[in-house]
Amino acid sequence: MKIELNKEFIEHLTLLIAQKADPEIIQAIGSLHPADIAEIMEQLDLDEAQYLFLLLDGELAADVLVEIPENDWNSYLKLLPSDTIAHRFIEYLESDDAADVMAELDDDLQDEVLQQMEDKEQAGDIADLLEYDEDTAGGIMATELVAVNENWTVQTCLKEISIQAEDIDEIYYVYVVDDKHFLKGVLSLKKLIMKPTHTPIKSLVTEDAHFVRTDASQEEVAQIMEKYDLVALPVVDQIGRLKGRITIDDVVDIIREEADKDYQMASGISGDVDAGDNVFQRAWTRIPWLFIGMCGGIVGAGVLGSNSSQLAQIPAMAFFIPLIAAMAGNVGVQSSSIIVQSIASGNRNFDSVGRKLFKELSVAFSTAMLFSVLIFLYNFLFNGNMGLTYSVSITLFIVMIFASLFGTVIPLILNKLKIDPAVATGPFITTTNDILGLIIYMTVARMFFEIL
Amino acid sequence: MKIELNKEFIEHLTLLIAQKADPEIIQAIGSLHPADIAEIMEQLDLDEAQYLFLLLDGELAADVLVEIPENDWNSYLKLLPSDTIAHRFIEYLESDDAADVMAELDDDLQDEVLQQMEDKEQAGDIADLLEYDEDTAGGIMATELVAVNENWTVQTCLKEISIQAEDIDEIYYVYVVDDKHFLKGVLSLKKLIMKPTHTPIKSLVTEDAHFVRTDASQEEVAQIMEKYDLVALPVVDQIGRLKGRITIDDVVDIIREEADKDYQMASGISGDVDAGDNVFQRAWTRIPWLFIGMCGGIVGAGVLGSNSSQLAQIPAMAFFIPLIAAMAGNVGVQSSSIIVQSIASGNRNFDSVGRKLFKELSVAFSTAMLFSVLIFLYNFLFNGNMGLTYSVSITLFIVMIFASLFGTVIPLILNKLKIDPAVATGPFITTTNDILGLIIYMTVARMFFEIL
Repeated sequence: MKIELNKEFIEHLTLLIAQKADPEIIQAIGSLHPADIAEIMEQLDLDEAQYLFLLLDGELAADVLVEIPENDWNSYLKLLPSDTIAHRFIEYLESDDAADVMAELDDDLQDEVLQQMEDKEQAGDIADLLEYDEDTAGGIMATELVAVNENWTVQTCLKEISIQAEDIDEIYYVYVVDDKHFLKGVLSLKKLIMKPTHTPIKSLVTEDAHFVRTDASQEEVAQIMEKYDLVALPVVDQIGRLKGRITIDDVVDIIREEADKDYQMASGISGDVDAGDNVFQRAWTRIPWLFIGMCGGIVGAGVLGSNSSQLAQIPAMAFFIPLIAAMAGNVGVQSSSIIVQSIASGNRNFDSVGRKLFKELSVAFSTAMLFSVLIFLYNFLFNGNMGLTYSVSITLFIVMIFASLFGTVIPLILNKLKIDPAVATGPFITTTNDILGLIIYMTVARMFFEIL
Repeated sequence: MKIELNKEFIEHLTLLIAQKADPEIIQAIGSLHPADIAEIMEQLDLDEAQYLFLLLDGELAADVLVEIPENDWNSYLKLLPSDTIAHRFIEYLESDDAADVMAELDDDLQDEVLQQMEDKEQAGDIADLLEYDEDTAGGIMATELVAVNENWTVQTCLKEISIQAEDIDEIYYVYVVDDKHFLKGVLSLKKLIMKPTHTPIKSLVTEDAHFVRTDASQEEVAQIMEKYDLVALPVVDQIGRLKGRITIDDVVDIIREEADKDYQMASGISGDVDAGDNVFQRAWTRIPWLFIGMCGGIVGAGVLGSNSSQLAQIPAMAFFIPLIAAMAGNVGVQSSSIIVQSIASGNRNFDSVGRKLFKELSVAFSTAMLFSVLIFLYNFLFNGNMGLTYSVSITLFIVMIFASLFGTVIPLILNKLKIDPAVATGPFITTTNDILGLIIYMTVARMFFEIL
């Protein structure tokens, strides 16, 4: 039976929780998919969600936990004794999820849980996984996989698979290794079942299979799997021994995360924002960028202040400050986002920096030309002051070229310095360009009115 | 042998193409993955890429074509006669890719190609697929899949699979249907090979399998596959008959596309931007947003112009125009991006509009409080004019609240009106808030100086 997840259902559940009507609660949610239960819990208040979580069956609780945002795990794990975490969560979960859960625990509790695990091999695997940096292939891979020896036949393989595959959710590929566990190739399950049982594995294996090393970045993993349309990717150590595999569902999460992060950077929000975070956490993610904006505004006030005699002489100059600032900001954001996106998509582009700049500046030149002519026409028709008319048009032209130059160069420099170029988008670039725009405006206007 | 894709390789290839050294070109790229060849072609000039494309073997050419951005397909397809398109591309490709390629052809050429296809069933499938809207499940699904009857046993299934699976790249799931082809459930290949061969299929099938209807939007498809970690999703018609399946690689592309689109909207770039587009195409994607910005700037100039006597009286007022505008813009972008992202991620949130607004306004209130106090302190210490000091602080407070309100409400309204709320981010919201900020600033200042 499919339950409609709607507001009424949530309200009904809240009522049941308030009444502590445990059997009714279990009946209402017990047959749902773990991802649906996790979604419901995000809609509830924390204490309601915790109450519901403790009612869940062992394995279901573990499946639900991994569907909840990682930030919230501690709110639930702290309710459980270490032996429950060991036996009902860590031992039950796939190794990548188990390691992720372990990573959220305090060091002491981590040791305790590892010691309480009965399967020492599994405990060893998890301890190994915890060693890898969490943003690398080693940090996201699972150790559960089906490996077969290159010297076997299809029949031996199929028998071995049914033994090895017990603990694995889904098998997409079978990994072929030699006697020393070096990765030799990959076989799809389809290929295996479509061949006569006596076929030697060696004759089926694709030798130029894609793989990554444990120290590859998660972005690199995502790019390879996306480009070659893979649903799983084997991970090897420095000398080529098979260590684990990464599945597409984890990569989908990475792609979503990276895209969200870049989007948030461009919007002036840092860190993870979650609908459930409280007001101060939410405010905190925005304050740094607003602070940059305010400092920029104060510097801008200083620039204008040092040109106050000029502004007093031609008050109409002030009217075009917002226009210059807005155009500088918009052009800067456009240019920087193009560069940031091309870096993020991992599209290798062998254009030299010079050629990238040339392309971007050609665009800047043509748009700057267009808009300075437009604003010239507007001011020529509706504004009597010819000095101001010329100043605004020339300023707009120069500002748009410079804004584009900055927007292109700053992300490229950051990327060279191994800093995420996304920080250069949004408020950072608009603020820089605002100030730049004001300085150019005041300088051009001064020159013009001195000449006239 | 793995070839390093670098600048030298591209230069070497360009040279070979200039010399028309066909055998050397084929030797250089023949063993590469189609996705790599596509990437190389994007680095070449169009005529070089076309030359290379025509050298490719039939099937390889088709595989390379589907890896090239859709916008560029016509540049290559127009080089080919209709019978080549029919026999070497459409008949060879999986139905979803074949339909995508067909959709790029002119109507006349489309008819011609369909008539020249030898496999009439395949031609019919493709004609059916072309009927679906390209953003729906029907538009992205492929008709190649393995369907088995619920009354069979594992053995019959495995035999049937090896027949049906000939034409399919990979099988992840087997779809179980009844005699009338109604979808009854899903079986993973793993489950099938791990059971004794006489097991009846009915006893293995998962009845509450996820599926979508042909008219489901592609966003909905992506959300379901992402949430439930699926690598393939069956598609049924209005009454539940199995029509096709969607695989995760297409969904990864959709997720990437949607994220890129939202990011570009927030950055003030419309439409697809491709590194290969020429200067005018690139400029064209930016001009609409810059035009909005310029119109906003002109309106802003008007607002300031109608308050010119006030500005002339207190010239220092002009100094804080950039600050007010920048803060208004930043707050607006932050609020709107939070809403747009929560809508895009498909996280159902049962908070009422009122509660969303309340949460957002609480954040706005606390940040507005903080920054108006900060700017008050700055002006109090470094700026003698108390009227201006009060005006700027009060304006900043009001502007930040309003900017946040606008940033939240406009995307919600657009979403209700079924317009993509992403259009409300970026230049649109900053321009609106710039003008709003100026009006509030002038109004507050007028009231203050009248009182003092």
